[in-house]
Amino acid sequence: MFERMAFIGIGLIGSSLARVVRRDGLAGEIAVAARTQETLDAATRLGLADRVTTDPAEAAADADIVVICTPLGAYGAVAGAIGKSLKPGAIVTDVGSVKRAAIAAIRPHLPEGVHLVPGHPIAGTEHSGPEAGFAELFDGRYCILTPEADTDTGAVDTVAALWRAAGSKVEIMGPGHHDQVLAITSHLPHLIAYTIVDTATQLSTDLQKEVIEFSASGFRDFTRIAASDPVMWRDIFLTNREAVLEILGRFTEDLTAMQRMIRRGDGDGLEDVFTRTRAVRRGVIDAKQA
Amino acid sequence: MFERMAFIGIGLIGSSLARVVRRDGLAGEIAVAARTQETLDAATRLGLADRVTTDPAEAAADADIVVICTPLGAYGAVAGAIGKSLKPGAIVTDVGSVKRAAIAAIRPHLPEGVHLVPGHPIAGTEHSGPEAGFAELFDGRYCILTPEADTDTGAVDTVAALWRAAGSKVEIMGPGHHDQVLAITSHLPHLIAYTIVDTATQLSTDLQKEVIEFSASGFRDFTRIAASDPVMWRDIFLTNREAVLEILGRFTEDLTAMQRMIRRGDGDGLEDVFTRTRAVRRGVIDAKQA
Repeated sequence: MFERMAFIGIGLIGSSLARVVRRDGLAGEIAVAARTQETLDAATRLGLADRVTTDPAEAAADADIVVICTPLGAYGAVAGAIGKSLKPGAIVTDVGSVKRAAIAAIRPHLPEGVHLVPGHPIAGTEHSGPEAGFAELFDGRYCILTPEADTDTGAVDTVAALWRAAGSKVEIMGPGHHDQVLAITSHLPHLIAYTIVDTATQLSTDLQKEVIEFSASGFRDFTRIAASDPVMWRDIFLTNREAVLEILGRFTEDLTAMQRMIRRGDGDGLEDVFTRTRAVRRGVIDAKQA
Repeated sequence: MFERMAFIGIGLIGSSLARVVRRDGLAGEIAVAARTQETLDAATRLGLADRVTTDPAEAAADADIVVICTPLGAYGAVAGAIGKSLKPGAIVTDVGSVKRAAIAAIRPHLPEGVHLVPGHPIAGTEHSGPEAGFAELFDGRYCILTPEADTDTGAVDTVAALWRAAGSKVEIMGPGHHDQVLAITSHLPHLIAYTIVDTATQLSTDLQKEVIEFSASGFRDFTRIAASDPVMWRDIFLTNREAVLEILGRFTEDLTAMQRMIRRGDGDGLEDVFTRTRAVRRGVIDAKQA
């Protein structure tokens, strides 16, 4: 599929995709750039890299496709570094969770003739780093691509084919719509999980110990979500601010209504809500995303 | 362990405990009472009942131990029905999620010489009904007992032994403290999950479809929690109102602080919180409750 492929950043997502590329022999050579020598050593040890470097420009030079897998906050610096070394016809893609911000950070640095095809695989775990990756991570999951209207269709098809090789179902949508949907399905749930786990950390030491012991009653699912990569999530909230605040406003209204029902002892109202939400779970199961 | 055992209600929890009793031969006879013939037929078909009846008093008569496994809202009626048919020395226990309310509903109906040992196994799934149970549900999980100070220690030891046979670690605490801890570890997480899933159900049909498709990014974990039994959860919020409202108040304060950090672009503040919460997950893993 590619003669030369470059990964800029090789954490959970990057290393999982690199594993797919290795497994299926999709690239003649993989060059990996990362910030720390420790990460590069891991990539080499895992057999994911033919060349490693701390210089993104060096990894991206002569690559047919460059996959940016760093936290969103590093995109501008990465794109600035690689822009001049990209060859004509090269494809630049990414795996970031906020697409408008991704495009705004990368686009200005790309020379004419380089194709930008932003991507977002809807998959992950609470673990981070190259050791945490696995080739099956994307299997059966969606990958959203958000190309601009005038993007070369051949480049879009190529990136779509890469994700299909990983087992993903590919969907195309506008970056603004993507950011709105993900604010609901991902960013708000993470914000809430982080908050409730942090609420628990502020309890007395005794109570905290019990909260952990008895976490199997619901809390433990939140702790899993709230164990996700801190820097990655910091950048998501900083870059998808408007969409997150909008859906957070709706959630807060709904939570206030629930609070009122509890205070007033409105059992019928609570049961109605709890019955409605059960149907959503059936939808998730039917969509094979459970 | 028991000559005659009675289950009043035989849903997920009751049927799982009955499976343990059958597996280990802990009772000579199991009598099951349930509201509907359909549930009783299932209990018979699953081999969990030697006798079935829609009359709790009939099931409880002559039992050495009666396990109340109905939603909390039915406790008063159940206790009122069985009170007079209980034999001296019988043990009454339950599996409900709110202990002060459980005691308040049951205690007035019990004759002298009957031992009340309220219990709460910290285990469950989002599925309901007798078919959903399995004997391993309690394995490695905690079970909290909240006996009053003057309760017969032999009766407490017997109920503890039953839960240890199910693989549980038994903890004793006061009912008020239990209700406060569970408000944090269980009731608030469920309330939040129900609310966010309901927020999503109020979106436009198109957006709702996408929320389900892309649920693997975090939302799906909330849908699982929000698929829990509606009547059981209605009763939990109605009976543990004060403790839930108290912890909900703290959560709302913390969420408002997060909202402020996002609006102001306070990346350091967000990263601090997200780093703190990761440590809680390690605690859950170390406690083998992950």
